[in-house]
Amino acid sequence: MQRALLAYERALDEWVPADAPAGLGEAMRYGVLGAGKRLRPLLVLAACEAVDGDAPAALRAGTAVELIHAYSLIHDDMPCMDNDVLRRGKPTVHVQFGEAQAMLAGDAMQALAFEVLTPEAGIAPALQARLCALLARASGHAGMAGGQAIDLASVGKDLDEATLRDMHRRKTGVLLQGSVLMGAACGETTPATWAALTDYGAAIGLAFQVVDDILDVTQDSAVLGKTAGKDQEANKPTYVSLMGLDGARRYADELRAQAHAALARSGLTNTAWLSLLADRVVDRDN
Amino acid sequence: MQRALLAYERALDEWVPADAPAGLGEAMRYGVLGAGKRLRPLLVLAACEAVDGDAPAALRAGTAVELIHAYSLIHDDMPCMDNDVLRRGKPTVHVQFGEAQAMLAGDAMQALAFEVLTPEAGIAPALQARLCALLARASGHAGMAGGQAIDLASVGKDLDEATLRDMHRRKTGVLLQGSVLMGAACGETTPATWAALTDYGAAIGLAFQVVDDILDVTQDSAVLGKTAGKDQEANKPTYVSLMGLDGARRYADELRAQAHAALARSGLTNTAWLSLLADRVVDRDN
Repeated sequence: MQRALLAYERALDEWVPADAPAGLGEAMRYGVLGAGKRLRPLLVLAACEAVDGDAPAALRAGTAVELIHAYSLIHDDMPCMDNDVLRRGKPTVHVQFGEAQAMLAGDAMQALAFEVLTPEAGIAPALQARLCALLARASGHAGMAGGQAIDLASVGKDLDEATLRDMHRRKTGVLLQGSVLMGAACGETTPATWAALTDYGAAIGLAFQVVDDILDVTQDSAVLGKTAGKDQEANKPTYVSLMGLDGARRYADELRAQAHAALARSGLTNTAWLSLLADRVVDRDN
Repeated sequence: MQRALLAYERALDEWVPADAPAGLGEAMRYGVLGAGKRLRPLLVLAACEAVDGDAPAALRAGTAVELIHAYSLIHDDMPCMDNDVLRRGKPTVHVQFGEAQAMLAGDAMQALAFEVLTPEAGIAPALQARLCALLARASGHAGMAGGQAIDLASVGKDLDEATLRDMHRRKTGVLLQGSVLMGAACGETTPATWAALTDYGAAIGLAFQVVDDILDVTQDSAVLGKTAGKDQEANKPTYVSLMGLDGARRYADELRAQAHAALARSGLTNTAWLSLLADRVVDRDN
């Protein structure tokens, strides 16, 4: 997995331009290089490996997903959203470069994601189109941006578990699931395998958020690399506020088991890496 | 041209979701429906018609370009950028829906543009990939977002003509040129035709900005549908401040002549519509 991480760091370093005008490139690079768990890119490569797919295409797909994830963090941290000053252990992009440059850097990173997916050569055009389709749907109104909108509207409200799950499914889950499916799209799959990987992606996507909510109350800011206790402070509904800490932990373990079960019925043999990533999602401490 | 406009309005109404969660769809629709000159979509269809291309693909391409243009206006109007309260004769999106929702609506509209370009059926996958490639490059750091960054850094500075032209080429010109090329990509072109349409797009892209600068000082807000005199007030460099009003008018006419000359050497016969749009870019009063 270390080799894959290095490949992604090299890809980001190569494809996120240092020479974009007027400080824009600097802000983009600051927002995505050198930090982050790279969970989504690793999911892309792991799924690609499981289906014996086109690895160079998966490298581009994983880089594109990470660019979308990183742009969403930049915008999410801005004063009009979460107003956060600390991210990945550093001042947030708007603190470092100003709000306007932060907004532009996020905008440019979303465009860059689709640029990375559509090289002049090296990926079959039909796969390029498929990857663009999956990424656009995972990041837009039906996915990540829609989840953010629900989140925005939910502050200070009591959400029931169904609404909370819908919010997190869109906000975080759909892009994690999309990472798995983009990796799978780099190879050939049967409908049954595709369905099993869809279920795997849904389970780890939800588990990720449940664990995020647990870490928000159990870890301090230094370990998280971002401000801890923010959700509580903002009176945001979380799985911990809904289920209690022990209940949330049990739920995370249940989702991990669902992810493993989905892999078992996928018909794929080379799922060690996907299996490991499901464990990492639940067992992480930041 | 009226039929084309109606087709675009129907497409936007159909593809920009009313049911996106938590008010997001409402903000997206407010930001793009029912107003705007639709110059970019018309350029896409006109170029498609000139090359006898795939009209349904061009309808999607034009809609996608308009979504990118509309999202850029929403973000550009926000307090951290131009802080504008009036757009297309209405309160700007952030005034109407708040800053956070405005940022999210813009983000979701960028994703939606790529979603519109990648339908499950109806456009050949290779053309989908080509359109995504053109749109991503026109809207990102090398194009629109990069131009915005230069603009941001230029307030209160004396720019020479070369730097001013580079800023506007990226900020406005590249997406207008990209509209022409996306339309051309919907059909077959020779390299010579592609080069001529590239020149046509560059000329009208620059002319558009020169005329914008002229209108900013000669028209009032009611005619423009946005706040007039903003550039002067913000001490932004413009073609008028650089060349004087008469000089800017002469330059716009020269660019119009360049656009017509490019069409003449394109080898295309069906360029009436592109020719008309070049005139409209220069002769418009808002």
